Amino acid sequence: MSQPSSPTRYKLTVAYKGDGYKGWQIQKNGLTIQETLENTLLRILQKKIPVTGAGRTDSGVHAEGQVAHITLDTKIEPIKLLKGLNGLLPPDIRILSIEEVALSFHARFSAKEKIYCYKLYRHKIHNPFHRRDSLHYPHPISIDAIQEAIPHFLGTKNFKSFTNEAHNVEKDYCKTLYNIEIKEEGEILSFTFSGSGFLYKMVRNLSATLLAIGTNRLPLSSLPALFAAEDRRVCPGALPALGLTLIKVVY
Amino acid sequence: MSQPSSPTRYKLTVAYKGDGYKGWQIQKNGLTIQETLENTLLRILQKKIPVTGAGRTDSGVHAEGQVAHITLDTKIEPIKLLKGLNGLLPPDIRILSIEEVALSFHARFSAKEKIYCYKLYRHKIHNPFHRRDSLHYPHPISIDAIQEAIPHFLGTKNFKSFTNEAHNVEKDYCKTLYNIEIKEEGEILSFTFSGSGFLYKMVRNLSATLLAIGTNRLPLSSLPALFAAEDRRVCPGALPALGLTLIKVVY
Repeated sequence: MSQPSSPTRYKLTVAYKGDGYKGWQIQKNGLTIQETLENTLLRILQKKIPVTGAGRTDSGVHAEGQVAHITLDTKIEPIKLLKGLNGLLPPDIRILSIEEVALSFHARFSAKEKIYCYKLYRHKIHNPFHRRDSLHYPHPISIDAIQEAIPHFLGTKNFKSFTNEAHNVEKDYCKTLYNIEIKEEGEILSFTFSGSGFLYKMVRNLSATLLAIGTNRLPLSSLPALFAAEDRRVCPGALPALGLTLIKVVY
Repeated sequence: MSQPSSPTRYKLTVAYKGDGYKGWQIQKNGLTIQETLENTLLRILQKKIPVTGAGRTDSGVHAEGQVAHITLDTKIEPIKLLKGLNGLLPPDIRILSIEEVALSFHARFSAKEKIYCYKLYRHKIHNPFHRRDSLHYPHPISIDAIQEAIPHFLGTKNFKSFTNEAHNVEKDYCKTLYNIEIKEEGEILSFTFSGSGFLYKMVRNLSATLLAIGTNRLPLSSLPALFAAEDRRVCPGALPALGLTLIKVVY
Protein backbone atom coordinates (compact mmCIF):
# COMPACT_ATOMS: atom_id res chain seq x y z
CA MET A 1 0.00 0.00 0.00
CA SER A 2 2.78 2.44 0.94
CA GLN A 3 5.42 3.66 -1.50
CA PRO A 4 8.53 1.53 -1.75
CA SER A 5 10.89 2.93 0.86
CA SER A 6 14.38 4.00 -0.17
CA PRO A 7 16.27 5.62 2.70
CA THR A 8 17.83 8.89 1.63
CA ARG A 9 20.21 11.12 3.53
CA TYR A 10 20.13 14.92 3.42
CA LYS A 11 22.73 17.43 4.47
CA LEU A 12 21.30 20.58 6.06
CA THR A 13 23.27 23.81 6.49
CA VAL A 14 21.81 25.82 9.34
CA ALA A 15 22.34 29.39 10.63
CA TYR A 16 21.14 30.45 14.06
CA LYS A 17 21.40 33.26 16.52
CA GLY A 18 22.09 31.20 19.61
CA ASP A 19 21.28 33.64 22.41
CA GLY A 20 17.73 32.34 22.79
CA TYR A 21 18.75 28.67 22.98
CA LYS A 22 20.45 26.24 25.34
CA GLY A 23 22.90 25.21 22.64
CA TRP A 24 22.62 22.63 19.87
CA GLN A 25 22.09 19.36 21.72
CA ILE A 26 18.76 18.39 23.29
CA GLN A 27 18.73 19.25 27.01
CA LYS A 28 16.29 18.82 29.84
CA ASN A 29 16.66 22.40 31.06
CA GLY A 30 15.63 24.41 28.01
CA LEU A 31 14.98 24.69 24.31
CA THR A 32 17.81 23.74 21.95
CA ILE A 33 18.41 24.09 18.20
CA GLN A 34 18.36 20.32 17.61
CA GLU A 35 15.04 19.97 19.45
CA THR A 36 13.52 22.88 17.52
CA LEU A 37 14.58 21.28 14.22
CA GLU A 38 13.24 17.85 15.24
CA ASN A 39 9.93 19.34 16.39
CA THR A 40 9.58 21.20 13.08
CA LEU A 41 10.40 18.07 11.04
CA LEU A 42 7.77 16.21 13.08
CA ARG A 43 5.18 18.82 12.15
CA ILE A 44 6.06 18.57 8.45
CA LEU A 45 6.66 14.82 8.07
CA GLN A 46 4.39 13.55 10.88
CA LYS A 47 7.28 11.43 12.02
CA LYS A 48 10.13 11.71 14.52
CA ILE A 49 13.32 12.25 12.50
CA PRO A 50 16.62 12.42 14.44
CA VAL A 51 18.85 15.35 13.46
CA THR A 52 22.60 14.69 13.76
CA GLY A 53 24.80 17.78 14.00
CA ALA A 54 28.45 18.26 13.07
CA GLY A 55 29.10 19.25 16.66
CA ARG A 56 27.41 20.52 19.77
CA THR A 57 27.53 24.28 20.00
CA ASP A 58 27.16 25.40 23.63
CA SER A 59 24.34 27.36 25.16
CA GLY A 60 24.35 30.86 23.62
CA VAL A 61 26.81 30.09 20.82
CA HIS A 62 25.78 31.21 17.31
CA ALA A 63 26.20 29.54 13.91
CA GLU A 64 26.49 30.91 10.41
CA GLY A 65 27.00 27.46 8.93
CA GLN A 66 26.29 24.54 11.27
CA VAL A 67 25.79 21.27 9.38
CA ALA A 68 23.45 18.39 10.23
CA HIS A 69 22.15 15.29 8.50
CA ILE A 70 18.83 13.50 8.53
CA THR A 71 17.75 10.21 6.96
CA LEU A 72 14.28 9.92 5.44
CA ASP A 73 12.43 6.80 4.28
CA THR A 74 11.68 8.27 0.89
CA LYS A 75 13.03 10.92 -1.41
CA ILE A 76 11.75 14.43 -0.99
CA GLU A 77 12.54 17.52 -3.04
CA PRO A 78 15.18 19.42 -1.02
CA ILE A 79 13.81 22.86 -1.96
CA LYS A 80 10.32 21.88 -0.76
CA LEU A 81 11.66 20.65 2.56
CA LEU A 82 13.77 23.81 2.91
CA LYS A 83 10.78 26.08 2.30
CA GLY A 84 8.60 24.01 4.62
CA LEU A 85 11.15 24.16 7.44
CA ASN A 86 11.88 27.89 7.07
CA GLY A 87 8.15 28.57 7.00
CA LEU A 88 7.69 26.97 10.42
CA LEU A 89 11.01 27.57 12.19
CA PRO A 90 11.45 30.67 14.36
CA PRO A 91 13.26 33.38 12.34
CA ASP A 92 16.42 33.13 14.47
CA ILE A 93 16.99 29.66 12.95
CA ARG A 94 17.27 29.44 9.13
CA ILE A 95 17.98 26.46 6.92
CA LEU A 96 20.41 27.85 4.33
CA SER A 97 20.52 24.78 2.10
CA ILE A 98 19.49 21.14 1.87
CA GLU A 99 21.14 18.65 -0.46
CA GLU A 100 20.87 14.92 -0.98
CA VAL A 101 24.08 13.15 0.03
CA ALA A 102 25.38 9.58 0.07
CA LEU A 103 24.18 7.38 2.93
CA SER A 104 27.80 7.22 4.02
CA PHE A 105 27.83 10.98 4.74
CA HIS A 106 27.85 11.76 8.46
CA ALA A 107 27.63 15.38 9.65
CA ARG A 108 30.05 14.73 12.49
CA PHE A 109 32.35 11.94 11.33
CA SER A 110 32.76 13.11 7.73
CA ALA A 111 33.76 16.66 8.80
CA LYS A 112 37.33 17.52 7.78
CA GLU A 113 37.60 21.03 9.15
CA LYS A 114 35.66 23.44 11.32
CA ILE A 115 35.92 27.20 11.41
CA TYR A 116 34.91 29.22 14.47
CA CYS A 117 35.07 32.96 15.07
CA TYR A 118 35.27 34.81 18.41
CA LYS A 119 34.36 38.50 18.36
CA LEU A 120 35.32 41.25 20.80
CA TYR A 121 33.72 44.69 20.72
CA ARG A 122 36.39 47.22 21.69
CA HIS A 123 34.66 50.62 21.96
CA LYS A 124 34.10 51.80 25.52
CA ILE A 125 30.32 51.62 24.97
CA HIS A 126 28.94 48.29 23.73
CA ASN A 127 27.09 48.69 20.42
CA PRO A 128 23.37 47.76 20.69
CA PHE A 129 23.65 46.11 17.26
CA HIS A 130 26.45 43.77 18.39
CA ARG A 131 25.68 43.24 22.06
CA ARG A 132 24.30 39.77 21.40
CA ASP A 133 27.10 38.50 19.17
CA SER A 134 30.27 39.97 20.63
CA LEU A 135 31.99 40.23 23.99
CA HIS A 136 32.35 43.82 25.19
CA TYR A 137 36.05 44.34 25.86
CA PRO A 138 36.91 48.06 25.99
CA HIS A 139 40.51 47.64 27.18
CA PRO A 140 43.83 48.04 25.32
CA ILE A 141 44.92 44.93 23.41
CA SER A 142 48.30 44.40 21.73
CA ILE A 143 47.54 42.77 18.39
CA ASP A 144 51.28 42.36 17.80
CA ALA A 145 51.67 40.27 20.96
CA ILE A 146 48.80 38.01 19.86
CA GLN A 147 50.20 37.69 16.33
CA GLU A 148 53.51 36.63 17.81
CA ALA A 149 51.78 33.98 19.95
CA ILE A 150 49.72 32.40 17.16
CA PRO A 151 52.39 30.08 15.70
CA HIS A 152 52.73 28.44 19.14
CA PHE A 153 49.14 27.18 18.86
CA LEU A 154 49.23 25.84 15.29
CA GLY A 155 49.76 22.25 14.22
CA THR A 156 48.86 18.96 15.89
CA LYS A 157 49.04 19.32 19.65
CA ASN A 158 47.56 18.03 22.86
CA PHE A 159 45.00 20.69 23.82
CA LYS A 160 44.00 19.18 27.16
CA SER A 161 44.89 22.46 28.92
CA PHE A 162 42.32 24.23 26.75
CA THR A 163 39.22 22.14 27.37
CA ASN A 164 36.76 21.92 30.23
CA GLU A 165 37.37 18.37 31.38
CA ALA A 166 34.13 17.60 33.23
CA HIS A 167 31.98 17.62 30.11
CA ASN A 168 34.56 16.11 27.81
CA VAL A 169 33.48 12.93 26.06
CA GLU A 170 36.70 12.67 24.05
CA LYS A 171 39.52 10.33 24.99
CA ASP A 172 41.98 11.96 22.62
CA TYR A 173 43.04 15.53 23.31
CA CYS A 174 45.12 15.86 20.14
CA LYS A 175 43.68 18.21 17.58
CA THR A 176 45.20 19.99 14.61
CA LEU A 177 44.85 23.75 14.43
CA TYR A 178 45.41 24.94 10.85
CA ASN A 179 45.19 28.66 11.34
CA ILE A 180 44.20 31.53 13.62
CA GLU A 181 43.39 34.76 11.82
CA ILE A 182 43.08 38.10 13.60
CA LYS A 183 40.94 40.76 11.98
CA GLU A 184 40.10 44.33 12.97
CA GLU A 185 36.95 45.74 11.42
CA GLY A 186 35.89 49.02 12.98
CA GLU A 187 35.44 48.37 16.67
CA ILE A 188 35.31 44.58 16.24
CA LEU A 189 38.37 42.45 16.82
CA SER A 190 37.89 38.84 15.77
CA PHE A 191 39.88 35.63 16.14
CA THR A 192 39.03 33.03 13.47
CA PHE A 193 40.15 29.48 14.22
CA SER A 194 40.26 26.71 11.66
CA GLY A 195 41.10 23.20 12.73
CA SER A 196 40.44 19.47 12.32
CA GLY A 197 38.04 19.65 15.23
CA PHE A 198 37.71 21.29 18.63
CA LEU A 199 37.38 19.96 22.17
CA TYR A 200 34.64 21.11 24.55
CA LYS A 201 34.98 24.90 25.09
CA MET A 202 38.37 24.82 23.32
CA VAL A 203 37.77 27.91 21.15
CA ARG A 204 36.62 29.95 24.14
CA ASN A 205 39.62 28.80 26.18
CA LEU A 206 42.03 29.57 23.32
CA SER A 207 40.41 32.99 22.85
CA ALA A 208 40.81 33.72 26.57
CA THR A 209 44.47 32.74 26.37
CA LEU A 210 45.14 34.91 23.30
CA LEU A 211 43.40 37.81 25.04
CA ALA A 212 45.49 37.29 28.19
CA ILE A 213 48.64 37.46 26.05
CA GLY A 214 47.38 40.58 24.27
CA THR A 215 46.68 42.31 27.57
CA ASN A 216 49.96 41.41 29.21
CA ARG A 217 48.39 39.11 31.78
CA LEU A 218 50.20 36.07 30.40
CA PRO A 219 53.75 36.10 29.00
CA LEU A 220 54.40 34.42 25.67
CA SER A 221 57.18 32.44 27.32
CA SER A 222 54.67 30.62 29.53
CA LEU A 223 52.96 28.90 26.59
CA PRO A 224 55.11 25.73 26.49
CA ALA A 225 54.44 25.15 30.21
CA LEU A 226 50.74 25.79 29.63
CA PHE A 227 50.54 23.09 26.97
CA ALA A 228 52.71 20.72 29.02
CA ALA A 229 50.51 21.05 32.12
CA GLU A 230 47.56 19.30 30.43
CA ASP A 231 45.39 20.96 33.03
CA ARG A 232 42.82 23.63 32.24
CA ARG A 233 43.29 25.32 35.61
CA VAL A 234 46.63 26.77 34.46
CA CYS A 235 44.79 28.72 31.70
CA PRO A 236 42.62 31.83 31.92
CA GLY A 237 38.91 30.86 32.14
CA ALA A 238 36.93 30.42 28.91
CA LEU A 239 35.42 33.58 27.41
CA PRO A 240 31.59 33.80 27.45
CA ALA A 241 29.49 32.06 24.77
CA LEU A 242 27.90 35.17 23.23
CA GLY A 243 31.06 36.13 21.28
CA LEU A 244 31.40 32.74 19.57
CA THR A 245 30.07 31.73 16.15
CA LEU A 246 30.51 28.46 14.25
CA ILE A 247 31.25 29.81 10.77
CA LYS A 248 31.57 26.72 8.63
CA VAL A 249 32.05 22.95 8.55
CA VAL A 250 34.17 21.65 5.68
CA TYR A 251 33.74 18.13 4.22
CA MET B 1 20.26 76.79 50.83
CA SER B 2 20.44 75.26 47.35
CA GLN B 3 23.46 75.60 45.06
CA PRO B 4 23.47 78.59 42.75
CA SER B 5 21.77 77.42 39.59
CA SER B 6 23.52 77.83 36.27
CA PRO B 7 21.57 76.23 33.45
CA THR B 8 23.81 74.07 31.33
CA ARG B 9 23.05 72.30 28.08
CA TYR B 10 24.37 68.87 27.16
CA LYS B 11 24.51 67.14 23.81
CA LEU B 12 23.88 63.40 23.95
CA THR B 13 24.76 60.99 21.13
CA VAL B 14 22.56 57.93 21.35
CA ALA B 15 22.57 54.52 19.60
CA TYR B 16 19.57 52.23 19.70
CA LYS B 17 18.20 49.09 18.16
CA GLY B 18 14.72 50.35 17.40
CA ASP B 19 12.78 47.12 16.90
CA GLY B 20 11.57 47.03 20.50
CA TYR B 21 10.33 50.63 20.50
CA LYS B 22 7.52 52.75 19.07
CA GLY B 23 10.03 55.20 17.63
CA TRP B 24 11.75 58.21 19.19
CA GLN B 25 8.89 60.48 20.17
CA ILE B 26 6.70 59.86 23.23
CA GLN B 27 3.49 58.04 22.21
CA LYS B 28 0.42 56.87 24.02
CA ASN B 29 0.46 53.43 22.43
CA GLY B 30 3.84 52.10 23.52
CA LEU B 31 7.33 52.65 24.84
CA THR B 32 9.59 55.08 22.95
CA ILE B 33 13.27 55.98 23.09
CA GLN B 34 12.60 59.54 24.29
CA GLU B 35 10.36 58.28 27.11
CA THR B 36 12.93 55.67 28.16
CA LEU B 37 15.63 58.36 28.30
CA GLU B 38 13.41 60.76 30.28
CA ASN B 39 12.42 58.01 32.73
CA THR B 40 16.06 57.12 33.26
CA LEU B 41 17.07 60.77 33.78
CA LEU B 42 14.24 61.06 36.31
CA ARG B 43 15.66 58.11 38.25
CA ILE B 44 19.15 59.63 38.28
CA LEU B 45 18.36 63.32 38.79
CA GLN B 46 15.05 62.96 40.68
CA LYS B 47 13.62 65.51 38.31
CA LYS B 48 11.71 65.49 35.03
CA ILE B 49 14.17 66.59 32.31
CA PRO B 50 12.80 66.98 28.76
CA VAL B 51 14.94 65.33 26.08
CA THR B 52 14.89 67.06 22.68
CA GLY B 53 15.93 64.91 19.73
CA ALA B 54 17.41 65.92 16.37
CA GLY B 55 14.44 64.26 14.72
CA ARG B 56 11.75 61.70 15.28
CA THR B 57 12.76 58.28 14.10
CA ASP B 58 9.67 56.17 13.36
CA SER B 59 8.54 53.05 15.14
CA GLY B 60 11.11 50.31 14.53
CA VAL B 61 13.79 52.56 13.02
CA HIS B 62 17.32 52.17 14.44
CA ALA B 63 20.01 54.74 15.23
CA GLU B 64 23.78 54.55 15.33
CA GLY B 65 24.11 58.25 16.11
CA GLN B 66 20.88 60.01 17.08
CA VAL B 67 21.53 63.33 18.85
CA ALA B 68 19.52 64.94 21.64
CA HIS B 69 19.98 67.80 24.07
CA ILE B 70 18.97 68.33 27.67
CA THR B 71 19.24 71.38 29.91
CA LEU B 72 20.15 70.94 33.57
CA ASP B 73 20.02 73.48 36.41
CA THR B 74 23.58 72.82 37.41
CA LYS B 75 26.75 71.48 35.91
CA ILE B 76 27.36 67.78 36.09
CA GLU B 77 30.38 65.79 34.94
CA PRO B 78 29.40 64.39 31.52
CA ILE B 79 31.23 61.08 32.06
CA LYS B 80 29.37 60.52 35.34
CA LEU B 81 26.01 61.14 33.71
CA LEU B 82 26.97 58.88 30.79
CA LYS B 83 27.91 56.02 33.12
CA GLY B 84 24.81 56.55 35.23
CA LEU B 85 22.52 56.48 32.20
CA ASN B 86 24.16 53.44 30.58
CA GLY B 87 24.01 51.65 33.92
CA LEU B 88 20.21 52.01 34.04
CA LEU B 89 19.16 52.06 30.39
CA PRO B 90 18.18 48.80 28.66
CA PRO B 91 21.17 47.49 26.65
CA ASP B 92 19.48 48.17 23.30
CA ILE B 93 19.85 51.90 24.04
CA ARG B 94 23.38 53.22 24.65
CA ILE B 95 24.57 56.76 25.28
CA LEU B 96 27.74 56.99 23.17
CA SER B 97 28.85 60.42 24.39
CA ILE B 98 27.76 63.44 26.39
CA GLU B 99 29.34 66.85 26.02
CA GLU B 100 28.60 70.29 27.40
CA VAL B 101 27.46 72.68 24.65
CA ALA B 102 26.41 76.33 24.41
CA LEU B 103 22.87 77.14 25.53
CA SER B 104 22.23 78.17 21.91
CA PHE B 105 22.79 74.58 20.72
CA HIS B 106 19.56 72.87 19.70
CA ALA B 107 19.58 69.20 18.68
CA ARG B 108 17.01 69.80 15.96
CA PHE B 109 17.47 73.38 14.79
CA SER B 110 21.28 73.43 14.88
CA ALA B 111 21.54 70.26 12.74
CA LYS B 112 23.21 70.91 9.37
CA GLU B 113 23.09 67.45 7.87
CA LYS B 114 21.62 64.05 8.57
CA ILE B 115 22.79 60.70 7.28
CA TYR B 116 20.46 57.71 7.02
CA CYS B 117 21.12 54.22 5.73
CA TYR B 118 18.61 51.71 4.33
CA LYS B 119 19.73 48.06 4.20
CA LEU B 120 18.46 45.23 2.02
CA TYR B 121 19.46 41.61 2.61
CA ARG B 122 19.69 39.91 -0.78
CA HIS B 123 20.34 36.21 -0.15
CA LYS B 124 17.30 33.99 -0.71
CA ILE B 125 17.30 33.07 3.00
CA HIS B 126 17.22 35.97 5.47
CA ASN B 127 20.23 35.91 7.81
CA PRO B 128 19.22 35.47 11.50
CA PHE B 129 21.94 37.99 12.40
CA HIS B 130 20.46 40.71 10.18
CA ARG B 131 16.77 39.93 10.25
CA ARG B 132 16.09 42.81 12.63
CA ASP B 133 18.10 45.48 10.83
CA SER B 134 17.59 44.78 7.13
CA LEU B 135 14.73 44.20 4.73
CA HIS B 136 14.82 40.74 3.17
CA TYR B 137 14.80 41.29 -0.59
CA PRO B 138 15.99 38.16 -2.44
CA HIS B 139 15.19 39.39 -5.96
CA PRO B 140 17.47 40.61 -8.78
CA ILE B 141 18.38 44.30 -8.55
CA SER B 142 20.19 46.33 -11.21
CA ILE B 143 22.70 48.47 -9.33
CA ASP B 144 23.57 50.22 -12.60
CA ALA B 145 19.99 51.38 -13.08
CA ILE B 146 19.94 52.79 -9.53
CA GLN B 147 23.31 54.50 -10.00
CA GLU B 148 21.98 56.13 -13.14
CA ALA B 149 18.91 57.40 -11.26
CA ILE B 150 20.75 58.92 -8.30
CA PRO B 151 21.69 62.29 -9.86
CA HIS B 152 17.97 62.95 -10.46
CA PHE B 153 17.38 63.01 -6.70
CA LEU B 154 20.32 65.20 -5.66
CA GLY B 155 20.20 68.92 -4.97
CA THR B 156 17.47 71.14 -3.59
CA LYS B 157 14.07 69.85 -4.64
CA ASN B 158 10.47 69.66 -3.58
CA PHE B 159 10.13 66.17 -2.10
CA LYS B 160 6.38 66.28 -1.47
CA SER B 161 5.89 63.13 -3.58
CA PHE B 162 8.22 61.29 -1.20
CA THR B 163 6.58 62.01 2.14
CA ASN B 164 3.55 60.60 3.91
CA GLU B 165 1.39 63.71 4.06
CA ALA B 166 -0.99 62.85 6.90
CA HIS B 167 1.67 62.98 9.58
CA ASN B 168 3.65 65.80 8.07
CA VAL B 169 4.13 68.80 10.32
CA GLU B 170 6.29 70.64 7.79
CA LYS B 171 5.02 73.42 5.62
CA ASP B 172 8.05 73.41 3.38
CA TYR B 173 8.67 70.34 1.25
CA CYS B 174 12.01 71.58 -0.12
CA LYS B 175 15.01 69.68 1.13
CA THR B 176 18.55 69.38 -0.14
CA LEU B 177 19.91 65.92 -0.79
CA TYR B 178 23.72 65.99 -0.88
CA ASN B 179 24.47 62.42 -1.79
CA ILE B 180 23.14 58.87 -2.14
CA GLU B 181 25.78 56.17 -1.86
CA ILE B 182 25.14 52.57 -2.86
CA LYS B 183 27.27 49.89 -1.22
CA GLU B 184 27.37 46.12 -1.62
CA GLU B 185 28.91 44.24 1.29
CA GLY B 186 28.39 40.49 1.05
CA GLU B 187 24.65 39.93 0.88
CA ILE B 188 23.83 43.44 2.12
CA LEU B 189 22.97 46.21 -0.31
CA SER B 190 22.71 49.61 1.35
CA PHE B 191 21.56 53.07 0.28
CA THR B 192 23.13 55.86 2.35
CA PHE B 193 21.41 59.25 2.10
CA SER B 194 22.93 62.50 3.30
CA GLY B 195 20.88 65.66 3.24
CA SER B 196 19.97 68.90 4.95
CA GLY B 197 17.00 67.20 6.53
CA PHE B 198 14.32 64.67 5.68
CA LEU B 199 10.52 64.80 5.60
CA TYR B 200 8.32 62.21 7.34
CA LYS B 201 9.10 58.75 5.86
CA MET B 202 11.13 60.41 3.08
CA VAL B 203 14.11 58.01 3.28
CA ARG B 204 11.82 54.98 3.16
CA ASN B 205 9.90 56.43 0.21
CA LEU B 206 13.12 57.31 -1.64
CA SER B 207 14.49 53.80 -0.95
CA ALA B 208 11.28 52.26 -2.33
CA THR B 209 11.59 54.42 -5.46
CA LEU B 210 15.25 53.48 -6.01
CA LEU B 211 14.36 49.82 -5.53
CA ALA B 212 11.49 50.10 -8.03
CA ILE B 213 13.93 51.56 -10.57
CA GLY B 214 16.48 48.82 -9.85
CA THR B 215 13.85 46.13 -10.38
CA ASN B 216 12.42 47.54 -13.57
CA ARG B 217 9.07 48.42 -12.02
CA LEU B 218 9.59 52.14 -12.60
CA PRO B 219 11.35 53.64 -15.63
CA LEU B 220 14.00 56.28 -15.07
CA SER B 221 12.13 58.53 -17.49
CA SER B 222 9.17 58.76 -15.11
CA LEU B 223 11.17 60.56 -12.41
CA PRO B 224 10.48 64.16 -13.53
CA ALA B 225 6.72 63.46 -13.54
CA LEU B 226 7.04 61.81 -10.13
CA PHE B 227 8.62 64.93 -8.63
CA ALA B 228 6.18 67.21 -10.46
CA ALA B 229 3.12 65.35 -9.14
CA GLU B 230 3.78 66.45 -5.53
CA ASP B 231 1.62 63.52 -4.50
CA ARG B 232 2.93 60.48 -2.67
CA ARG B 233 0.39 58.18 -4.28
CA VAL B 234 2.32 58.27 -7.56
CA CYS B 235 5.32 56.68 -5.78
CA PRO B 236 5.87 53.10 -4.66
CA GLY B 237 4.89 52.72 -0.96
CA ALA B 238 7.53 53.36 1.71
CA LEU B 239 9.79 50.41 2.59
CA PRO B 240 9.35 48.96 6.11
CA ALA B 241 11.05 50.57 9.12
CA LEU B 242 13.29 47.67 10.11
CA GLY B 243 15.84 48.35 7.31
CA LEU B 244 16.38 52.00 8.27
CA THR B 245 19.10 53.41 10.53
CA LEU B 246 19.87 57.03 11.42
CA ILE B 247 23.66 56.99 11.10
CA LYS B 248 24.71 60.49 12.09
CA VAL B 249 23.60 64.08 12.69
CA VAL B 250 26.14 66.71 11.67
CA TYR B 251 26.29 70.18 13.35
